[in-house]
Amino acid sequence: MPPSPPDLGPAPYLITREQSPPNLEFPFRNLNARVTPTASFYVRSHFPTPFLTAEDWSLTVGGAVTRPLRLGLAELRALPARTLTATMECAGNGRVFLTPRRRGVAWELGAVGTAEWTGVPLSKVLERAGLLGTACEVVLEGADRGTLTDPLPTPGDIPYARSVPLDKALGDVLLAYRMNGEALTPNHGFPVRAVVPGWYGMASVKWLTSVQVTAEPFQGYFQTVDYAYWETRDGLPPQLRPIGAMEVKATIARPAPHEEVPCDAVYEVAGAAWAGETDVARVEVSVDGGCTWREAEFLDPPTPHVWRRWRFAWHTPIRPGRRTLVARATDARDRTQPGAHDPARGGYMITHPLPVEVDVRERSP
Amino acid sequence: MPPSPPDLGPAPYLITREQSPPNLEFPFRNLNARVTPTASFYVRSHFPTPFLTAEDWSLTVGGAVTRPLRLGLAELRALPARTLTATMECAGNGRVFLTPRRRGVAWELGAVGTAEWTGVPLSKVLERAGLLGTACEVVLEGADRGTLTDPLPTPGDIPYARSVPLDKALGDVLLAYRMNGEALTPNHGFPVRAVVPGWYGMASVKWLTSVQVTAEPFQGYFQTVDYAYWETRDGLPPQLRPIGAMEVKATIARPAPHEEVPCDAVYEVAGAAWAGETDVARVEVSVDGGCTWREAEFLDPPTPHVWRRWRFAWHTPIRPGRRTLVARATDARDRTQPGAHDPARGGYMITHPLPVEVDVRERSP
Repeated sequence: MPPSPPDLGPAPYLITREQSPPNLEFPFRNLNARVTPTASFYVRSHFPTPFLTAEDWSLTVGGAVTRPLRLGLAELRALPARTLTATMECAGNGRVFLTPRRRGVAWELGAVGTAEWTGVPLSKVLERAGLLGTACEVVLEGADRGTLTDPLPTPGDIPYARSVPLDKALGDVLLAYRMNGEALTPNHGFPVRAVVPGWYGMASVKWLTSVQVTAEPFQGYFQTVDYAYWETRDGLPPQLRPIGAMEVKATIARPAPHEEVPCDAVYEVAGAAWAGETDVARVEVSVDGGCTWREAEFLDPPTPHVWRRWRFAWHTPIRPGRRTLVARATDARDRTQPGAHDPARGGYMITHPLPVEVDVRERSP
Repeated sequence: MPPSPPDLGPAPYLITREQSPPNLEFPFRNLNARVTPTASFYVRSHFPTPFLTAEDWSLTVGGAVTRPLRLGLAELRALPARTLTATMECAGNGRVFLTPRRRGVAWELGAVGTAEWTGVPLSKVLERAGLLGTACEVVLEGADRGTLTDPLPTPGDIPYARSVPLDKALGDVLLAYRMNGEALTPNHGFPVRAVVPGWYGMASVKWLTSVQVTAEPFQGYFQTVDYAYWETRDGLPPQLRPIGAMEVKATIARPAPHEEVPCDAVYEVAGAAWAGETDVARVEVSVDGGCTWREAEFLDPPTPHVWRRWRFAWHTPIRPGRRTLVARATDARDRTQPGAHDPARGGYMITHPLPVEVDVRERSP
């Protein structure tokens, strides 16, 4: 594969999608490592960043447990730690490509990143608290709070909170205090955040201060009127469901939409693909808008919850013109990306292949 | 009690709140009977009225049952019938009094009425279908359908549907084909509607065509993003709950807001009170804006699910001026109306006492 090194620009930076609260996007064209540097990792906030201190922070664990408890940061850090790598994507990533426009932050391609997270498995903390037999879900609550009017008014001031089913909570959910080997930054949830591997980012609650075990499915704001989709089954009218695991998806990093590429050359089309709770098995690339497909080559092995970068050598057309590139991924369970966005998903779970239009130009002399 | 007969005007009529779909309100000042004539009974519609025929109509019964079945109207009418009287109130009744204004139909006081309903107990139909052990709720679906954008976009074209818990479904829910002794009118759900006694009207699905038993709580549009409220308990963030039973409430019919009443006279303040799943035990009236209260007299005995009309002889002030009347009810479980509207209810369940301002004037000579 001939080299066509991308111009990564100078220092890492993020695209501002909203200034306050901070909603910042990784310029996905800059993808060049399996693990995203923290300074390039997208930031999704619903409320202003709470500036917590390591000294004052504590985690309350309660609800359907036998021994409610409160842990300080030193106590949490004293528990056996685990490090895992996980790709995290905002459930609204790609929204700017939807027609008609949907409400919400206008993410392009880069509300996604992969980091190494270090912390204590949630299962260890729940073990210490002792689950009651009625336990059904675990509600993760952050210190960030406020009032929203969109998509519907909140009942006054509410905290950001999200639940995970008990199975997942006892599985691989991490209470992380390190990201890529360093303490979390304020925007990424200092001092402790949840990391829910394989799930869209809305589940990985930042500034985590409370873990409550419930006996019934939690019906909070951020999993009913927001971060939910409509499911139709069993001959019933559509039902509202909380968004959970990520679905299989390939994204093209290079070329970027509207990039100019030289004609009669070999251009290394590059990107990444991820699949939530399963592995990515195959990525295909089309350089003719989806008429014909060829398989891409992986740069990374399949690893649970981690994207796989891929590349494809494109022999660009001899003559100038416009071309549309598309990539599509298939997961280890042989599920592939849908042909179009399902309106029942609203502005979320945007996993249909996004076309990248480029201009093929004469090479500069 | 000296007579002060209200002027009921000529024929019964309804106030148009929305022309299409029809949302029509009983002018509550005209309250003068325990059972509301059908022509005065409020109409709440979400979609255009479906004009069904007795010949073509059928009811599908399915889901978590052993014998899915389909009943025509003659078959339904052949089952043992029951007649019950029930008061039905729209969950948004009184919304026009809220500050700030809330979305939804601007009901004043009269989105409420009492009728005699005749039909087949839902329990009899479920018996014929045979419930599975997993049965949890019963989803009632109407033939009315369409697309909404408010409060949130529907997932395309959806039917009106609502669920009731199994206990309630096996209790007193009626599949009614008669209202006040006559066939239902098109606007009231011809040929068959559900009547869920004690619950706000949104549960009493009109134009009923499907009954589906589910193994899990139903999460349809009209009990999540609409017709729901925020409940805060167990130290958890607020959770979305479907609106269910009506709560205790007294409403003043006469005088109407902004009515002129003669000074130095006896005016018969009149109204009704209802309490959902329990009885109304007491109604009190204040003629000084809530400073002092005196007990009103009931015209009707306590009857499950039926309002009780009440009256109170007001010796009006000797001199002209403005006065504020308020009524409040207490139920058989000693619960009384809240002092103010809870914002967590949004534009629904408006049960705080609504003040009626009147102008006391010199008697005409």
